[in-house]
Amino acid sequence: MTERVWTAGIIVIGDEILSGRTQDKNVAQIGTWLNVQGIRLTEVRIIGDDTDAIVAAVDALRARYDYVFTTGGIGPTHDDITVDAIAQALGVEVVIHPDARAILDAYYAPRGGLNEARLRMARVPAGADLIPNSYSGAPGIRMGNLYIMAGVPHITAGMLDALTGSLEGGDPLVSRTIGSWAAESEIADLLRAQEKSHEGCQIGSYPFFREGKTGANFVIRSTDQSRLDACAADLAAALEAAGFATVEGGI
Amino acid sequence: MTERVWTAGIIVIGDEILSGRTQDKNVAQIGTWLNVQGIRLTEVRIIGDDTDAIVAAVDALRARYDYVFTTGGIGPTHDDITVDAIAQALGVEVVIHPDARAILDAYYAPRGGLNEARLRMARVPAGADLIPNSYSGAPGIRMGNLYIMAGVPHITAGMLDALTGSLEGGDPLVSRTIGSWAAESEIADLLRAQEKSHEGCQIGSYPFFREGKTGANFVIRSTDQSRLDACAADLAAALEAAGFATVEGGI
Repeated sequence: MTERVWTAGIIVIGDEILSGRTQDKNVAQIGTWLNVQGIRLTEVRIIGDDTDAIVAAVDALRARYDYVFTTGGIGPTHDDITVDAIAQALGVEVVIHPDARAILDAYYAPRGGLNEARLRMARVPAGADLIPNSYSGAPGIRMGNLYIMAGVPHITAGMLDALTGSLEGGDPLVSRTIGSWAAESEIADLLRAQEKSHEGCQIGSYPFFREGKTGANFVIRSTDQSRLDACAADLAAALEAAGFATVEGGI
Repeated sequence: MTERVWTAGIIVIGDEILSGRTQDKNVAQIGTWLNVQGIRLTEVRIIGDDTDAIVAAVDALRARYDYVFTTGGIGPTHDDITVDAIAQALGVEVVIHPDARAILDAYYAPRGGLNEARLRMARVPAGADLIPNSYSGAPGIRMGNLYIMAGVPHITAGMLDALTGSLEGGDPLVSRTIGSWAAESEIADLLRAQEKSHEGCQIGSYPFFREGKTGANFVIRSTDQSRLDACAADLAAALEAAGFATVEGGI
């Protein structure tokens, strides 16, 4: 029986990521979270603050994956164009969401009150729901299979917490890591053979150079815990038999 | 006169990035380096170790941008399929590059010698050139407008050093940062007006929360230093006039 695989894409929106000024952290954070939901992150696109680029990416990914997350471009300033671009892609109007307005009203009451810029953060594509933001005022937005998240990683973290358990997924991907002070070029054949003989398991090889020595961590991934454990045991035994000490959990 | 804008795309290849296990650093590193070459990074796609996904991304991006960089998947193990997938996308054979073989031969001579797995790293799409790797043996690969780089960030850093000055570009993008303890929702109109009145400059707004206070850094980007300086001076003056102290260089 082949289980249905649930997939997701992420669209990271922001000139500051492409220019190298800001190191993206949302891909790793959302990817990790998706694994736990039993959803496989399959593709990420990083694009600038550009309406045409956002529309094209949303069009391409929302048809292709079960879930699509966007990050960035939902603040109050002129370069925050994500909501408008997504509404354009979906062919709907942009409206003020009454609950978002009420949230922002309460949040900004002790902070000088709502102004036009702050009210921008209550704008959503018509028909959208809100995603709670436990950190600051402005909520995230859910529209069909699109999840519109903040660019600031700890705000997105809070929004992910709010979504935990609410997205349908398959069996979570589980993983185990075996570390070894083996150059991966010395054990490539062994790895290939181990992967081939363990159906339903993928083995990734991640070399490193530390303390003047070459080693690698081997990450085994599967949706089946018993297959995963069997593969990890066999891989460790094969490495030991080839003369390489192994470290459960990785080096 | 509108200057020609040179563009680039990056394809990050690796299950470990999508799973969240590894934090990508190549996008920020290559994006920063491209700015200095006068080339604008316009799109990034992150995909898994999957031939079809690599072929599709290479096909899409190499036609669209002046330069395309790939990172990852050029090591000696079974999950390193980048060279084969790119050759398939280009419709050429995979061949052993004689210079790459000689480099690997010399590199591995004191390390147990070449074996089949290590020789995999001499495989290139037919017609490709090599990019020197100053850190370890296996070189990068240049094939038309495709630059095939390592996944390990410091190896890619060395390959970028080797390429510095060799890619045709336009005027480098220069930037200045003005920091302020202003909530961006308080100065959104001011920012929008400043950007509108300074042609050839983009202003990005990057909010933060520190020491219990809200602030933002405003990054002004332009290919024209005098326009950049004029915009920075006017923006700082406008913020000060609105009652917000500014910090040249950002907070």
